[in-house]
Amino acid sequence: MNRAQIESLLNEVREGRTGVAEALERLRNLPFEDLGFAKVDHHRALRTGMPEVIFAESKTPAQVAAIFERMVKAGGNVLATRATREVYEAVRAREPRAEFHEMARAITMAQTEAEAGKGMVGVVCAGTSDLPIAEEAAVTARLMGNTVDLVADVGVAGIHRLLAQQETLKSARVLIVCAGMEGALPTVVGGLVNAPVIAVPTSVGYGASLGGVAALLGMLNTCAPNVCVVNIDNGFGAGCIASLINHR
Amino acid sequence: MNRAQIESLLNEVREGRTGVAEALERLRNLPFEDLGFAKVDHHRALRTGMPEVIFAESKTPAQVAAIFERMVKAGGNVLATRATREVYEAVRAREPRAEFHEMARAITMAQTEAEAGKGMVGVVCAGTSDLPIAEEAAVTARLMGNTVDLVADVGVAGIHRLLAQQETLKSARVLIVCAGMEGALPTVVGGLVNAPVIAVPTSVGYGASLGGVAALLGMLNTCAPNVCVVNIDNGFGAGCIASLINHR
Amino acid sequence: MNRAQIESLLNEVREGRTGVAEALERLRNLPFEDLGFAKVDHHRALRTGMPEVIFAESKTPAQVAAIFERMVKAGGNVLATRATREVYEAVRAREPRAEFHEMARAITMAQTEAEAGKGMVGVVCAGTSDLPIAEEAAVTARLMGNTVDLVADVGVAGIHRLLAQQETLKSARVLIVCAGMEGALPTVVGGLVNAPVIAVPTSVGYGASLGGVAALLGMLNTCAPNVCVVNIDNGFGAGCIASLINHR
Amino acid sequence: MNRAQIESLLNEVREGRTGVAEALERLRNLPFEDLGFAKVDHHRALRTGMPEVIFAESKTPAQVAAIFERMVKAGGNVLATRATREVYEAVRAREPRAEFHEMARAITMAQTEAEAGKGMVGVVCAGTSDLPIAEEAAVTARLMGNTVDLVADVGVAGIHRLLAQQETLKSARVLIVCAGMEGALPTVVGGLVNAPVIAVPTSVGYGASLGGVAALLGMLNTCAPNVCVVNIDNGFGAGCIASLINHR
Amino acid sequence: MNRAQIESLLNEVREGRTGVAEALERLRNLPFEDLGFAKVDHHRALRTGMPEVIFAESKTPAQVAAIFERMVKAGGNVLATRATREVYEAVRAREPRAEFHEMARAITMAQTEAEAGKGMVGVVCAGTSDLPIAEEAAVTARLMGNTVDLVADVGVAGIHRLLAQQETLKSARVLIVCAGMEGALPTVVGGLVNAPVIAVPTSVGYGASLGGVAALLGMLNTCAPNVCVVNIDNGFGAGCIASLINHR
Amino acid sequence: MNRAQIESLLNEVREGRTGVAEALERLRNLPFEDLGFAKVDHHRALRTGMPEVIFAESKTPAQVAAIFERMVKAGGNVLATRATREVYEAVRAREPRAEFHEMARAITMAQTEAEAGKGMVGVVCAGTSDLPIAEEAAVTARLMGNTVDLVADVGVAGIHRLLAQQETLKSARVLIVCAGMEGALPTVVGGLVNAPVIAVPTSVGYGASLGGVAALLGMLNTCAPNVCVVNIDNGFGAGCIASLINHR
Amino acid sequence: MNRAQIESLLNEVREGRTGVAEALERLRNLPFEDLGFAKVDHHRALRTGMPEVIFAESKTPAQVAAIFERMVKAGGNVLATRATREVYEAVRAREPRAEFHEMARAITMAQTEAEAGKGMVGVVCAGTSDLPIAEEAAVTARLMGNTVDLVADVGVAGIHRLLAQQETLKSARVLIVCAGMEGALPTVVGGLVNAPVIAVPTSVGYGASLGGVAALLGMLNTCAPNVCVVNIDNGFGAGCIASLINHR
Amino acid sequence: MNRAQIESLLNEVREGRTGVAEALERLRNLPFEDLGFAKVDHHRALRTGMPEVIFAESKTPAQVAAIFERMVKAGGNVLATRATREVYEAVRAREPRAEFHEMARAITMAQTEAEAGKGMVGVVCAGTSDLPIAEEAAVTARLMGNTVDLVADVGVAGIHRLLAQQETLKSARVLIVCAGMEGALPTVVGGLVNAPVIAVPTSVGYGASLGGVAALLGMLNTCAPNVCVVNIDNGFGAGCIASLINHR
Repeated sequence: MNRAQIESLLNEVREGRTGVAEALERLRNLPFEDLGFAKVDHHRALRTGMPEVIFAESKTPAQVAAIFERMVKAGGNVLATRATREVYEAVRAREPRAEFHEMARAITMAQTEAEAGKGMVGVVCAGTSDLPIAEEAAVTARLMGNTVDLVADVGVAGIHRLLAQQETLKSARVLIVCAGMEGALPTVVGGLVNAPVIAVPTSVGYGASLGGVAALLGMLNTCAPNVCVVNIDNGFGAGCIASLINHR
Repeated sequence: MNRAQIESLLNEVREGRTGVAEALERLRNLPFEDLGFAKVDHHRALRTGMPEVIFAESKTPAQVAAIFERMVKAGGNVLATRATREVYEAVRAREPRAEFHEMARAITMAQTEAEAGKGMVGVVCAGTSDLPIAEEAAVTARLMGNTVDLVADVGVAGIHRLLAQQETLKSARVLIVCAGMEGALPTVVGGLVNAPVIAVPTSVGYGASLGGVAALLGMLNTCAPNVCVVNIDNGFGAGCIASLINHR
Repeated sequence: MNRAQIESLLNEVREGRTGVAEALERLRNLPFEDLGFAKVDHHRALRTGMPEVIFAESKTPAQVAAIFERMVKAGGNVLATRATREVYEAVRAREPRAEFHEMARAITMAQTEAEAGKGMVGVVCAGTSDLPIAEEAAVTARLMGNTVDLVADVGVAGIHRLLAQQETLKSARVLIVCAGMEGALPTVVGGLVNAPVIAVPTSVGYGASLGGVAALLGMLNTCAPNVCVVNIDNGFGAGCIASLINHR
Repeated sequence: MNRAQIESLLNEVREGRTGVAEALERLRNLPFEDLGFAKVDHHRALRTGMPEVIFAESKTPAQVAAIFERMVKAGGNVLATRATREVYEAVRAREPRAEFHEMARAITMAQTEAEAGKGMVGVVCAGTSDLPIAEEAAVTARLMGNTVDLVADVGVAGIHRLLAQQETLKSARVLIVCAGMEGALPTVVGGLVNAPVIAVPTSVGYGASLGGVAALLGMLNTCAPNVCVVNIDNGFGAGCIASLINHR
Repeated sequence: MNRAQIESLLNEVREGRTGVAEALERLRNLPFEDLGFAKVDHHRALRTGMPEVIFAESKTPAQVAAIFERMVKAGGNVLATRATREVYEAVRAREPRAEFHEMARAITMAQTEAEAGKGMVGVVCAGTSDLPIAEEAAVTARLMGNTVDLVADVGVAGIHRLLAQQETLKSARVLIVCAGMEGALPTVVGGLVNAPVIAVPTSVGYGASLGGVAALLGMLNTCAPNVCVVNIDNGFGAGCIASLINHR
Repeated sequence: MNRAQIESLLNEVREGRTGVAEALERLRNLPFEDLGFAKVDHHRALRTGMPEVIFAESKTPAQVAAIFERMVKAGGNVLATRATREVYEAVRAREPRAEFHEMARAITMAQTEAEAGKGMVGVVCAGTSDLPIAEEAAVTARLMGNTVDLVADVGVAGIHRLLAQQETLKSARVLIVCAGMEGALPTVVGGLVNAPVIAVPTSVGYGASLGGVAALLGMLNTCAPNVCVVNIDNGFGAGCIASLINHR
Repeated sequence: MNRAQIESLLNEVREGRTGVAEALERLRNLPFEDLGFAKVDHHRALRTGMPEVIFAESKTPAQVAAIFERMVKAGGNVLATRATREVYEAVRAREPRAEFHEMARAITMAQTEAEAGKGMVGVVCAGTSDLPIAEEAAVTARLMGNTVDLVADVGVAGIHRLLAQQETLKSARVLIVCAGMEGALPTVVGGLVNAPVIAVPTSVGYGASLGGVAALLGMLNTCAPNVCVVNIDNGFGAGCIASLINHR
Repeated sequence: MNRAQIESLLNEVREGRTGVAEALERLRNLPFEDLGFAKVDHHRALRTGMPEVIFAESKTPAQVAAIFERMVKAGGNVLATRATREVYEAVRAREPRAEFHEMARAITMAQTEAEAGKGMVGVVCAGTSDLPIAEEAAVTARLMGNTVDLVADVGVAGIHRLLAQQETLKSARVLIVCAGMEGALPTVVGGLVNAPVIAVPTSVGYGASLGGVAALLGMLNTCAPNVCVVNIDNGFGAGCIASLINHR
């Protein structure tokens, strides 16, 4: 059923040759695939506070800058991940208000006030090597309207340092825990809190870490029932899902 | 936009309060997700000659028989794969016309005449151990309206036996080639013919065959440009896609 | 610092030989590891509505029944996963009020009224083979106080059936999506809703499914930013984390 | 036994020095390997419209240019894949009519009119990162005489954009679907059309994508029966096999 | 072009109706595939002393017995590997002269005198668990005409026991070394002798032995330049190739 | 240099024809490989307190009993691992003093007093599923003369239970820590103590635990510098090496 | 229970309103998590002689130098691993007394006299390629107060060279054995000595060595009961654990 | 028994205090490990015609040149593999007679006449990409005294080109077959000849070739019983073992 057929049906209705009930029935039986004109909902991202995102790693500075500019014009918040300072310089030349978060390797441009999350998002990591991923998660969550507390340097081989941060951990409405190597931190944190824990395996390590696969497997096999997992080094995804939970 | 809204719009058209052009525009902008009544196209399988299929391996004979009976009632052709004789007995008790293909481990029930394929589908395998998968492909293709020639016992370590079958291979409009262990047969066949070759890795082998993964990798790395691959032991899928090509 | 030392300190305080400020300081500097008497918080599970759980698969019916009985006496809700009917009979002999959920392979015993979740938990799966895992997630979430809607038979190769369920999907506060084989369902669902999606890979499949690893990898590589993942076949874990999100 | 020997044998027959029966017997015992004159079919590639191909990635610009020139002299169409602009400059210096397809990283030289395919080849991909592989498939198919429609930017996490392209998808005689990350697009497309679908996993992704292995496994485990798979990033192979199907 | 056609062509030459040049041209253009009379070398196996082989593991006793009987009738030596005593009973009922080698899980039937190898084949293994594979290699080599010395119980963790067998090792013309677990034995043996070493990884082990993959990888990474490798548990293949070397 | 040559050399010395210094030099240059008579040191196992061991899993009860009896006659301590009660009954029929450790699946026969270790060996595990491996380690260590303290039910998701056992952990001279699933326990324990920690991954888990590989990788990637690892489920090996450390 | 509550309790004790026994009981029931003031034991590393460590590989020279300087100020011994000469220059500019161990790629700064180990630590490796890892282990062990003997160039394919070093091997109190490729050396060494052996797989090799995974698997599957394993290329960890054993 | 003890024993013999028979018995019982003076057999490599080898890939030109010069001084033949032209220049500066084999990436220095092999060594490969490995094998075999025939450009997807080379293949006494991608060539060659076939998987390929692992697995799963395998890209090892077989 194409546009012409629907026009014709509407004409029949207008002229009284087809009753409303019958027209409704015919429209109702209209298969999806013939609706060439159905409207795609372009505004979903904006309404949920999720920014437009550019994965900068495999693009040239010029490409990132061009895409960034176009997205800014669309009016929403914009985020570029895995960006170097060189990429930032290219973006800033076009969008002087863009901000660079060096540790997080992220560029942000906040144009709209995102709806505030209902509680605090805790971001936890063990060592300084996991910080870029933890910061990427934090920058993402902040851009989506969340208050973020970042707790670093709390590895499982020095459990007391982690326990000393329990108050912060417990006050979070949802937690993001980043860890490489053996990937045990989310499980230990999961045992200390009642909040959902988003585990982010990082590619930090060498040898049998297999580029983060060891940490990933460790997290998937967690014995804590409040832990779920995202892809290796996916700080952005963890920030998004934590924000969604925090806005529920 | 729900049913009530559309009904109301139609009423406006009928009463002349809204013009056809405007109504058309409003329908056109209707987002997909509000079309609660869009009609799913249930008849696709029937039209394309693809049978309804039951994967019998993880089901009890009683379960297979019950599903088989219900599918037969729907009027199309029915195929149960990975079926034992015991499963067949349970099916036959309900559908006496069902046929059992022991080597293929398949039960079929042909109720409608499938449109005939345009040429011959060649099915090739190396050893007797690959025969169940080759036969599953052949049974599937036949049920979908194809003439099938099966060439067995033509492994790559005895290349002359394969070359002696070249006439058959070249007369096929599309070929299905099943092989376990090193999985080299589809590549050699691919080099002998101009037809598309559907490669089916089988789980035949031991040790470093890793349950068919070695054969699968071999086929994916083929140096013949007319070879594509399906899942390990997926004779059914190969039969389907070969039939689709043969009906083009 | 052991019990005797603390007793002695308290005596000094009582007798005025040590001031409160000084005693406080000495207690404050007390290292964790010397607190032989620190009290483990046994009541966490109860307070959060999380049931006591038995993984029945590797235990005899008698063992499960004995553990189940002991847990029931502790007063909380009890759940046994991966249980056969035979295991259930052993449990029922001791706890006649225990319920068996055959499809979910779960035994439950609800003794306390769990706090109600704030919205609906949607559980989605593609085929009948994924149902046991989906049902395990549903039974877990219900026992923890959540309303659950289960949507089955909506695979990605028949996208219209899934789209027809959009209203249900969109009304969920959090979604659990179970899928085997290629594991694409959570990504497609994630693109249709704004809620967090807990993806559960299942071991349904054969050959290159590698016991669920293919589905797991697919889910981890999702391009939907609202999807996180739990272990293969871990319906229980998905139910727990969905409940935590739904109680936030 | 070379040409001279056979000529001599025929002379003996002509002159009556050797009887037909004996000559037949001597020819009959001629093993394959001695048939110096058995005719290798050098013209297969040309007749099927398949171009001569150079995999440029591991060769120097000078090497590619030299091979390219030699192939052009042989008279058929020539294709170099995985070529940089630098490689193209070297080729153009020798063959000024050679064309560079930058996005596809391909150099082509069409000298003969390939037989036209019977329908349209649809090439589909999700994101801009998959475009080089999709373009390689498109360039290959076009060089082999096919009309190609390329549909980009239709990922499974935004299913409506894909559905909006259904008419194009359905009008293709065969489809090539490229996807990285979770690799779900071929399955969803396979569910929307009746045509054969050639799935091309791409190495787009990071972490658990394992260089495209996750996408590959997802495609092999497809639940759509009209999907087959080629190697990771093998746009060329997909173009070839689609052309073969389109010329049947 | 079949025998009749060539006969007719030769008759035309004899009768002068077709010239030699033209006949030569017609024969010359004869593609391989039309040579119905090209002689396949059916006797290769017999001449090289290689027995006909049945892989009994995945066949029923009745199937093995039937194939065994047919092969015996063909006149060569016959070997069934991976055979149980039950399989042997079925074979013996048809071929009373067949012998069972219990430890090797092999059935043999020697009908022809194999040509004697030029030296001794040494077969070495570490523990009793590797003995079935070592014995399969030994039985195979003996059936092919080789003298075999089997050295067992010489693991690398007790190097002196191995060194005490050096004289035997050094007197072998070729060595087969079977090992599971860490698979180091072939490397150590390879360092003690000048003969070629055929390494056979076995599936003996647990946990990280991954069904013999650890031993296989160890052997492939050998630092001894006289070691080559066959598939996991492939005693038969090792016996064959050792015999070939010993007959050179 | 064989026995005859050495005999001849000694005769020369006796007869004064060769001086002691020269004889010494000639013996000194004697290559290893000619020492047919070098004596293998059979008594190492006995002296180090290591028992003779039988891996019972792949043997029949009768085989284990026969080997066990022979080893007992040799006079040392004997240990059979992976033994069922049925195996034990067969052993006891021959050696009534043999003891069965049901949880550890081990049979022991202590005939000699092993030298006492210098401190306590701590054995730690998380859940009841890991107990068989932990008990195997404990039984092994005790048979080798060590005092063993076993701490069970201290998983990382309930860190307080572990901390409550710190005094025991700290009093151990060496620790064996068994864990399945994510395998994080050895790292956390390693951070609490100064003693060496032998980590034993167990095959406890499902799905992404990959039969213990996830736990193994986790332990190898430990961030605690006092942790080393043995094979999956290798409680025996851990017991041995802990005993060696404890006897230093 | 926070600081205020404890202060108040102490006041009650002082004022006689609460008895010592009751106060003790209330403190005893105090859950861990409320002890905001519990004292973390910062001095553990110093007391055990373990140096502060920097993994230099993924840091800039400036970063390493800054961290190194801060650690030196803390007073303990400092070790930087995986350091280039360029990194050393940056460190020396701030800490002129720092030493560079080129082969070990390590920088050390010894400020405190580590307690001497009780015996000798033997470090063994096969080829020159494994030397950097062996030297890293040696440098670590020396910095922690151990006497180290390094034995190089003793691969298993030339067993006599290893046997010639037996006296050294046997005089070690604990051994570190580094090997790449097939990773068999620790097993052979383990069979020659009674001491514990720490096996270090190295990433030396190519092809099927899979970056050291082959050596790692070989070592985990050792048949010597005195061998345990650390991560690939983890010379530092091996040095630490050997020192701990040598200080017991 | 140390040197002093043996000296003392010899003195007793000289002085007639100990008889020759008794002395012989005492020497005979001498355990290996006390023979500090046993002589390592340094001349094995020279006698067997195996050259001294340097793996140049991970060494600097200066290091290779230094080792090369030292080896040349030792008098045997010398081979450096994986060498660039830059490395060769460094070697030539010290040893002007050294030869560079560019395609093989090998440097050789033949100083001694190796014993001639008994037949011809055939080296076969499919494409130009496999040539460096095939040439490495050929250079190695030639240096060890073998006549080598190299057959290139005979892939399995164009089987006629391979069949046209059968005479060469059959005249080889042993064959080396190098192949990347699907690795099927050794199996097809193995089926055409009676000689032993050394299969060399190469890392040629992309995507699912997994760096040569696909070819390796294919070769290990060969259905030809005369094929054994060496490590990926190990042309040198294949040349050595082929030479050993050819010298038997």
